[in-house]
Amino acid sequence: MALWGGRFEGTTDALVWTFNQSLPFDQRLWREDITGSIAHAKMLGRQGIVPESDAAKIVAGLEALYADLASGAASLPPEAEDIHSAVESMLFARLGKEVAGKLHTARSRNDQIATDVRLWLRTALDELQSELTKLRVQLVALAEANLGTVLPGRTHHQHAQPVLLSHHLLAYFWMLSRDDERLADCRKRLNRLPLGAGALAGTPFPIDREFVAKELGFDGVCPNSLDAVADRDFAVEFCADASLLQLHLSRLAEELVLWSAPEFGFVELADSVTTGSSIMPQKKNPDVAELIRGKTGRVYGDLTTLLTLMKGLVLTYNKDMQEDKEPLFDAADTVTLCVSLMHRMLETAAFKPERMKQAMRGDFSTATDLADALAADGVPFREAHEIVGRIVRGCIAEKIGLEDLTLEALQAYDPRFTATALDAITPEASANARTSQGGTARVAVEAQLQLARASLEQH
Amino acid sequence: MALWGGRFEGTTDALVWTFNQSLPFDQRLWREDITGSIAHAKMLGRQGIVPESDAAKIVAGLEALYADLASGAASLPPEAEDIHSAVESMLFARLGKEVAGKLHTARSRNDQIATDVRLWLRTALDELQSELTKLRVQLVALAEANLGTVLPGRTHHQHAQPVLLSHHLLAYFWMLSRDDERLADCRKRLNRLPLGAGALAGTPFPIDREFVAKELGFDGVCPNSLDAVADRDFAVEFCADASLLQLHLSRLAEELVLWSAPEFGFVELADSVTTGSSIMPQKKNPDVAELIRGKTGRVYGDLTTLLTLMKGLVLTYNKDMQEDKEPLFDAADTVTLCVSLMHRMLETAAFKPERMKQAMRGDFSTATDLADALAADGVPFREAHEIVGRIVRGCIAEKIGLEDLTLEALQAYDPRFTATALDAITPEASANARTSQGGTARVAVEAQLQLARASLEQH
Amino acid sequence: MALWGGRFEGTTDALVWTFNQSLPFDQRLWREDITGSIAHAKMLGRQGIVPESDAAKIVAGLEALYADLASGAASLPPEAEDIHSAVESMLFARLGKEVAGKLHTARSRNDQIATDVRLWLRTALDELQSELTKLRVQLVALAEANLGTVLPGRTHHQHAQPVLLSHHLLAYFWMLSRDDERLADCRKRLNRLPLGAGALAGTPFPIDREFVAKELGFDGVCPNSLDAVADRDFAVEFCADASLLQLHLSRLAEELVLWSAPEFGFVELADSVTTGSSIMPQKKNPDVAELIRGKTGRVYGDLTTLLTLMKGLVLTYNKDMQEDKEPLFDAADTVTLCVSLMHRMLETAAFKPERMKQAMRGDFSTATDLADALAADGVPFREAHEIVGRIVRGCIAEKIGLEDLTLEALQAYDPRFTATALDAITPEASANARTSQGGTARVAVEAQLQLARASLEQH
Amino acid sequence: MALWGGRFEGTTDALVWTFNQSLPFDQRLWREDITGSIAHAKMLGRQGIVPESDAAKIVAGLEALYADLASGAASLPPEAEDIHSAVESMLFARLGKEVAGKLHTARSRNDQIATDVRLWLRTALDELQSELTKLRVQLVALAEANLGTVLPGRTHHQHAQPVLLSHHLLAYFWMLSRDDERLADCRKRLNRLPLGAGALAGTPFPIDREFVAKELGFDGVCPNSLDAVADRDFAVEFCADASLLQLHLSRLAEELVLWSAPEFGFVELADSVTTGSSIMPQKKNPDVAELIRGKTGRVYGDLTTLLTLMKGLVLTYNKDMQEDKEPLFDAADTVTLCVSLMHRMLETAAFKPERMKQAMRGDFSTATDLADALAADGVPFREAHEIVGRIVRGCIAEKIGLEDLTLEALQAYDPRFTATALDAITPEASANARTSQGGTARVAVEAQLQLARASLEQH
Repeated sequence: MALWGGRFEGTTDALVWTFNQSLPFDQRLWREDITGSIAHAKMLGRQGIVPESDAAKIVAGLEALYADLASGAASLPPEAEDIHSAVESMLFARLGKEVAGKLHTARSRNDQIATDVRLWLRTALDELQSELTKLRVQLVALAEANLGTVLPGRTHHQHAQPVLLSHHLLAYFWMLSRDDERLADCRKRLNRLPLGAGALAGTPFPIDREFVAKELGFDGVCPNSLDAVADRDFAVEFCADASLLQLHLSRLAEELVLWSAPEFGFVELADSVTTGSSIMPQKKNPDVAELIRGKTGRVYGDLTTLLTLMKGLVLTYNKDMQEDKEPLFDAADTVTLCVSLMHRMLETAAFKPERMKQAMRGDFSTATDLADALAADGVPFREAHEIVGRIVRGCIAEKIGLEDLTLEALQAYDPRFTATALDAITPEASANARTSQGGTARVAVEAQLQLARASLEQH
Repeated sequence: MALWGGRFEGTTDALVWTFNQSLPFDQRLWREDITGSIAHAKMLGRQGIVPESDAAKIVAGLEALYADLASGAASLPPEAEDIHSAVESMLFARLGKEVAGKLHTARSRNDQIATDVRLWLRTALDELQSELTKLRVQLVALAEANLGTVLPGRTHHQHAQPVLLSHHLLAYFWMLSRDDERLADCRKRLNRLPLGAGALAGTPFPIDREFVAKELGFDGVCPNSLDAVADRDFAVEFCADASLLQLHLSRLAEELVLWSAPEFGFVELADSVTTGSSIMPQKKNPDVAELIRGKTGRVYGDLTTLLTLMKGLVLTYNKDMQEDKEPLFDAADTVTLCVSLMHRMLETAAFKPERMKQAMRGDFSTATDLADALAADGVPFREAHEIVGRIVRGCIAEKIGLEDLTLEALQAYDPRFTATALDAITPEASANARTSQGGTARVAVEAQLQLARASLEQH
Repeated sequence: MALWGGRFEGTTDALVWTFNQSLPFDQRLWREDITGSIAHAKMLGRQGIVPESDAAKIVAGLEALYADLASGAASLPPEAEDIHSAVESMLFARLGKEVAGKLHTARSRNDQIATDVRLWLRTALDELQSELTKLRVQLVALAEANLGTVLPGRTHHQHAQPVLLSHHLLAYFWMLSRDDERLADCRKRLNRLPLGAGALAGTPFPIDREFVAKELGFDGVCPNSLDAVADRDFAVEFCADASLLQLHLSRLAEELVLWSAPEFGFVELADSVTTGSSIMPQKKNPDVAELIRGKTGRVYGDLTTLLTLMKGLVLTYNKDMQEDKEPLFDAADTVTLCVSLMHRMLETAAFKPERMKQAMRGDFSTATDLADALAADGVPFREAHEIVGRIVRGCIAEKIGLEDLTLEALQAYDPRFTATALDAITPEASANARTSQGGTARVAVEAQLQLARASLEQH
Repeated sequence: MALWGGRFEGTTDALVWTFNQSLPFDQRLWREDITGSIAHAKMLGRQGIVPESDAAKIVAGLEALYADLASGAASLPPEAEDIHSAVESMLFARLGKEVAGKLHTARSRNDQIATDVRLWLRTALDELQSELTKLRVQLVALAEANLGTVLPGRTHHQHAQPVLLSHHLLAYFWMLSRDDERLADCRKRLNRLPLGAGALAGTPFPIDREFVAKELGFDGVCPNSLDAVADRDFAVEFCADASLLQLHLSRLAEELVLWSAPEFGFVELADSVTTGSSIMPQKKNPDVAELIRGKTGRVYGDLTTLLTLMKGLVLTYNKDMQEDKEPLFDAADTVTLCVSLMHRMLETAAFKPERMKQAMRGDFSTATDLADALAADGVPFREAHEIVGRIVRGCIAEKIGLEDLTLEALQAYDPRFTATALDAITPEASANARTSQGGTARVAVEAQLQLARASLEQH
């Protein structure tokens, strides 16, 4: 049931038909397809391109169709080539060829699909940003609730310096805030109407694109008809943004997986978000975190697909571009679901301050503070660093930690040590000493929380 | 309906359950799951791990289940967590917990899923190689049928030297032959049994892995249980092979798209494998070739997904690896379908020797032959090249081709030209002059066809 | 010559040293490293963290070093571990350990490298945007100069409808305009100061990050020290933007390659931007366009590298992140060079209106106009489409074009045809009929040019 | 200094020249270029295409040139376009145009570069396989040395079942063995001679390709001249193999990074392969392992580059393909270096059996054994699993481990427990119980070691 055929003698090979058919995946666009058609029909009527009364019938017919599809009273004909033919054939059946046939005036499937996908992605972006905000709110709440907890901050996965758990969680807040900004930037560029570009060159009909744009909530129209039908930038840009967002989730997921391992024990996730083993009765697996991490590959793959797809394609529409939808849908679905599940998982996370504290026993993570204490007394930092390096070596040999050293022991290494050194090297003192803007001291983190809240309100 | 639970108090969050559930995609493995279980059950009986009579009941139950699923008399319970639980729950319902429960002895879902996927991919590989052979046969047939056709061979997409269409088509034959070899190499590494690895460490039961391997047609067993459940090399290797194969198809598809454009007109594809436009009545679009080209992105994306997924995962099984199936299925489906459609499309391809010939008029593609003719008369090649360069420049200024030059005209450029030069510069003479092994002369191409046929017979 | 060592007894393996050393590629950051250090030193003096007089000596020493490196009077010590140690060791040699040693107070290589790279990328972005503007200006100039030229617009690489060459060129203008916007958005997020984050947790020193940010032209400071050293979003975002920009260039490059082929002949590129063959004297290869197209792979590869690199890394700095620089440098260099060369190539492009016109002879690309003419006389479009489809089929059988049909011939197909149909089907009439906003009619393209000029001025 | 020019009037733009020039990276191929030319010259003489005496002079000249370049007595002219022109111009200078000019007979830069790269990659493959063998030997040695060490085997990064450290290390041995096989398969397909394909179509000269193939150690000749110059499969296949190998290294590297973290402490890497911090005196960073993990991104990026590059390129040579060399060189260098450094790092690795043992205290990793013990006494496994799940829950509530339970305590959960249960749940007993083929019991691992040694000998 193709919308073309006059020039064709042979019939399409059945396997070829299936290969070309996009309905199995673009049926998802039925809402957008009908909504776009309603705006188009209204415009055709207003401009006198189609008699007002026919336009009104078409609008009413489309609205009824929308309602029936939404309620399940009607369903799309599975044999249709694509969502446009599916909707059109249903409209034909309801209104008759005479009236319904006028809807396709002054447009083409090329500008129609570009419009449908942009409408769909706009909604998907809104939903994603909404889920993202929930996750960011959750991170702020956790940061507020855990201001008293100190854990070993890391570089090279080694213990580096003690930091507040709140500070650590807020690091993710800012990553996700940048994601949110990027998505807003993407939406800004996305929100332009391609409809009216026709097959590629525009149309001789006196259409009013600004009216249609306004009806559909677009910020303006695509200024060049060739570009309007040849462009899939929005899909690529979205998948790039989604990849970066998923990258951030993968880092947090990795930490949750590690923190759930017995060697760490920094967090316990609830039974409701973990699973067991069919063999090993003791297992409690952080599946959700693992899957979020794993799904990163999928989103990167979607981006690769789109970048490869569009490389070197001549203007304007090429059938290759039909392959844009599945990766776009998949990336949007995946990343929205992962954001939502990360939120849900964090809600159940029970952090274990005791285990974090215990992990810092004998870990030398306040060695910098010991060097800083010497430096504060006038020893050049490079020298202080060298002295403390030797102390660490000595402690390792003796199998003790910095916290086990007395002032005398310190002074045996270097007589310039004073009692302040001992005070400086508790994890809490270490963390709270770093009061610089953006630092991990409680006072600095509280200031940071203010910024985070302000950022959320701005939204 | 999880296979675990003893240690759990809370119930799983519904969204988490859906997120974790793999049945929506791994249900596709039902044949392999049952086949693997039958072999396992036979072995359990033979080894006396399970009473022979119980083993026999299980085997019979599984065979009946297979038949019922194949006929549609039974269907998988959609609420199951994965294909293993789905099959197991059906077996429980049929045989009772007492007997059916014994099937899961001495194995785990970790080694079971690895076995299922390997079995599935082995079948998929066989099918792909079979489709690939058909396409290679088709290319040889086309090469045999078009020995008389000459077209402009290209470098930098400029006309370079005339070549036989047969020679051009055989270039693709050899690309696909290497693909076929690579797939065979992949199959060789794939065809090892992971079952018996248990969850990760092997099993205390006196199992006989060699027996199971033989039953299932594996060439041997995976020698290390940790590797057996942690390894997804076969999936990555397959997707890499599929990417390279798809790369080859994309080159041929690109040529078919270009050759179908009015400026070329080198080929006409049948109505049965092309489509039209809803707007432009004259359009006849090479959709199939475009889609094959476009689907390259998808297969590259699948490879990216798997490579990203597995990067840096600690041993052994991690939930991330559940994400291996969708890209693997997608790559196998896509590439097999594309090979098959390329075959179908080429079957209908009507090549246009006249248009190819016409394209060589005035294209200077035999300029090398002119230089070779001079060189044959003792002029150093670099000098001959320089002289012919000037002739080309002169002809362009006069808006004529090499074929329009007389001997006098040539001698005006250089008196050393003789009459043989004129004979050498027809497209046919040019092509047929290149008699070196693997060259484009008819005699060399006929020798090449022999090799191609031999390569097909070897298979 | 490491900046650490106190705790170490063994010496570093030579191959390990080379493996870890980043100077071979990060030496490129010497300007940024010194500039950042100057701002840091000023701040240390102002805040009394370091005596004002020492700070002044350090600033002067760094300025002298900058000048000497810029003039070639000094050069970096090749055995240094990284750019920071290289600069520091030179400063030590000049100012003595006593004074120079104070520069490293209240900072770490972790926040220093993040600052250096951001400064570098900011400059690179500015340069890229500047080259991009030149290319956009060039496209507008070409569009203005070619308003009278019509070529076959394409979908599915088939002729679809005639379009103005200006319209076609402007399609690229808008793609590149979006790229420019994206780069500006990237710069906005990039332009935040990480310095002051210390190794990861901030610093106990009373630093003034806002002052340093202002000195270095940053819009503000990174609000979280962990994020400041763990974040490479800017590099990923830039490579994603670069990939999309390169994608656009690859499409234009592909068209230039095709248009240079003898079958098209739509453009001739100058000798200065093409090359020849060592064998085939007639060859004139569009190497630059091919290389631009080919370099797309490289930029996509850089993006893949960074996405893979950062996946699943725990906070904060990990040595893996040292691998961020080479792909970032490569992507920035490549895309800037490609934009610049595309500009240079287009400057020499001689378009061939005659060949474009000739390509439309007998190509049926105004078939839509014929159907539109019927539709304007009241025939439903679907029916008109069907009729014209039959006409096309008839013409193909007769080996004529639409332009060869008389009114009588048309009326033999359908009596409702009138003389206006014949006027409508010249390429010029067809193009100029599409007057809708963003369409290809000259009047619409002139309006579009206004928008393009306005967009350039805005910049 | 181009090898073409006759048809050109304008001179090449300087920036274009630089853009096109490949010498900066292909100079690396000088050995292969000269070696290939020597074989070609010998053949030209033997076949009488060039006078024997001239051929002998050329061979001698090339050998002298090789020696001079190797010793540093001569160096490549930096202004040459590519390695071929560079070598040719040096030969011209030495032998004079008359003689040297004959070398380029019956070949082109298109078949020459394909030959050079294949020769280069063959050597690179040999070197990589040699480094890989050393690493595999090292893994076997470590496995032999650590047969007495048990560590917690993992799934989902949770403790699953105790396994031998030897077993864990051998898992990597088998991964790398598959890599080795894949590289051998790649070499097999690579080792075919493209020379003799000419620019694309073969040559009219009576060349002897089999002779050249033999001289250069190729297994045969490429059977189709178009394919010979258009094919870069070997580069793609190699990068795919390198990606998978690097994937394996990234898993091992990740484990070494984690095991070096204080929470684990399973391994200590020597000072010679770790580095410190300029700020934190206690730091000892597993940089090498991190960098190996990070460099995975780079190799994946190289693969992406090549796949993107070649997609949809028409036959035969296109300038895009000049971009094949840098990613290929980079992938080969990177992966060979990473294999070598992994070897070096493992040589210094001091495993910590005590910490591994300690990690299994109270980790329930022998819960399966407890269930197996019940099952051995006739309790269906599913039921046993359920019972042990409850025991685990109870222990967690009591903050004890399985090892703290008495028989009475067990029987309080289920009276069917017997004394054998207590014996079964030590880590050693658990590991050694898994005697199935490929399992972790010492006896099974010893059998596996035999296989591993046999596999090494086979090589």
